[in-house]
Amino acid sequence: MATASHRIYIHEVASRDGFQIEPSFIPTEDKIRFINALSHTGLAKIEVTSFVSPKAIPHLRDAEEVMKAIERVPGVVYVALVPNARGAERALMCKADELNVFMSVSETHNRANVNRTSEQSLAGFKEVMDAVRAANAQVRMNASLSTSFGCPFEGDVPAERVLAFAERCLELGMHGVTLADTTGMANPRQVRELVTSAVQAFGADKITLHFHNTRGMGLANVVAGLEAGVTRFDASLGGLGGCPFAPGATGNICTEDVVHMLHEMGFTTGVDLDKLLSVARALPKIVGHDVPGQVAKAGKSSDLHPLPENLRV
Amino acid sequence: MATASHRIYIHEVASRDGFQIEPSFIPTEDKIRFINALSHTGLAKIEVTSFVSPKAIPHLRDAEEVMKAIERVPGVVYVALVPNARGAERALMCKADELNVFMSVSETHNRANVNRTSEQSLAGFKEVMDAVRAANAQVRMNASLSTSFGCPFEGDVPAERVLAFAERCLELGMHGVTLADTTGMANPRQVRELVTSAVQAFGADKITLHFHNTRGMGLANVVAGLEAGVTRFDASLGGLGGCPFAPGATGNICTEDVVHMLHEMGFTTGVDLDKLLSVARALPKIVGHDVPGQVAKAGKSSDLHPLPENLRV
Repeated sequence: MATASHRIYIHEVASRDGFQIEPSFIPTEDKIRFINALSHTGLAKIEVTSFVSPKAIPHLRDAEEVMKAIERVPGVVYVALVPNARGAERALMCKADELNVFMSVSETHNRANVNRTSEQSLAGFKEVMDAVRAANAQVRMNASLSTSFGCPFEGDVPAERVLAFAERCLELGMHGVTLADTTGMANPRQVRELVTSAVQAFGADKITLHFHNTRGMGLANVVAGLEAGVTRFDASLGGLGGCPFAPGATGNICTEDVVHMLHEMGFTTGVDLDKLLSVARALPKIVGHDVPGQVAKAGKSSDLHPLPENLRV
Repeated sequence: MATASHRIYIHEVASRDGFQIEPSFIPTEDKIRFINALSHTGLAKIEVTSFVSPKAIPHLRDAEEVMKAIERVPGVVYVALVPNARGAERALMCKADELNVFMSVSETHNRANVNRTSEQSLAGFKEVMDAVRAANAQVRMNASLSTSFGCPFEGDVPAERVLAFAERCLELGMHGVTLADTTGMANPRQVRELVTSAVQAFGADKITLHFHNTRGMGLANVVAGLEAGVTRFDASLGGLGGCPFAPGATGNICTEDVVHMLHEMGFTTGVDLDKLLSVARALPKIVGHDVPGQVAKAGKSSDLHPLPENLRV
């Protein structure tokens, strides 16, 4: 298990994974202000935006503008999600620190999402790597493997398949892979087993875990990931980002809830939780609705309450 | 750790812990119908109601009526919460299978809640035991120790203090103790440590864990409790029951979410999850508002989605 002597790295995804499926377009200025505020909270990485086609995801049509305008705080890695070599070139022009490519490990989900087979997506990764090398760019490369813990169309996804795609991504020269529980199907026992195998095969420093809290197991899965030795976790401020298959269901695990739990457990994250909570508490105003995060509402465990009237001297 | 060969026992508390703090009185007939529906889902225990003063908790003023009217399904243990010997006598007249007495381990919370010192509450437990023995009643006795994982007024509660009160309850002849995280302050590392000590001292079969999901750690704490060997957990259908200190914050862990996670992890609970979900989905109509439970909204992990249009043959 990762111990209190390990720093745990928190990767914020709200401005990409959250804003892309909001009912309304978040104004560019609001995005920039939001990301700048996050930059000063001690987060390790911020996935800023996605360089996909504006037609596919109109809510992130301002990717260039946002990526160029945000403040770059030293120590924070600014990530861009890219679907292909063209997206990678756009992201490199805006000086992203890390490019995150993505595919689904299950064929059906990959075809539904990007209309390619998983093999075709992997071939696309190679094209992105070639483009990055051709540009002689100093950039970190990461591959996100969606449906690593289950596919909403197919059900179970064999661990061997997940590990094989992860291995092939690393063989392409990727610096890391993210095992993603895209629709919140993972359970703690499964996480412990699959992630232990991945850590043994590739080393904990290569692996990021991306969990959703769709069925309430999000933080339990984080603990299972810690127990398997992983120190890098995606999360979304406020728990922003829903599940397209289940109206009313929550999506990503909530950054401030994850950081709160880690601190309560004695882990170091580098995050100033109070600062993060103040950004989180401003989020409902930006998106125009309540968000699922719980610590922003309930307060930290360490926020004591005043004595009741009858016990005051 | 409890393994898949262990049955995990689920104790439902919604009709007591949930209904008592609802904005409106739940009609007696609705309570009875709700409990009867729960009785046929395979739950191990149902905490039916509380025999407190109707002045203190008017929403449970129908305790006698409910306890007498509900169907008694063989194999289900029907529990009554009782504050004192008088409450115990009332509950015994209604043939409760188990009496649950309660106190807070932290002085301040106990004084705020029942205006007694913890020692006075423990002395009260003895009076209840004496009353039960005098009545020669065949009834299980359990003591719930609130604020076992932290006090909202005092902060940390020493583990030694929790274990000492638990030991004294068992010495009084109680069959079991419940360690309760009354305001959702517990974290998985603390649960693992405190509960491992309790299991070593008293045996896992004496211990029930009662968690709240106030800060999102509820199911992670259940897993930590399983890892410490515990097999008995309280939970509330729909996650009913809030936190009086934090408006908008959630309270008890949600029964159907706990059962769903346990089944996904390979544990046996004896619960028919589909039946339980159908009772959970009827709950918002009974209480008149949305409830925090997530699996009722998102569906089970194993509920697969139809193929998207473009992939259908």
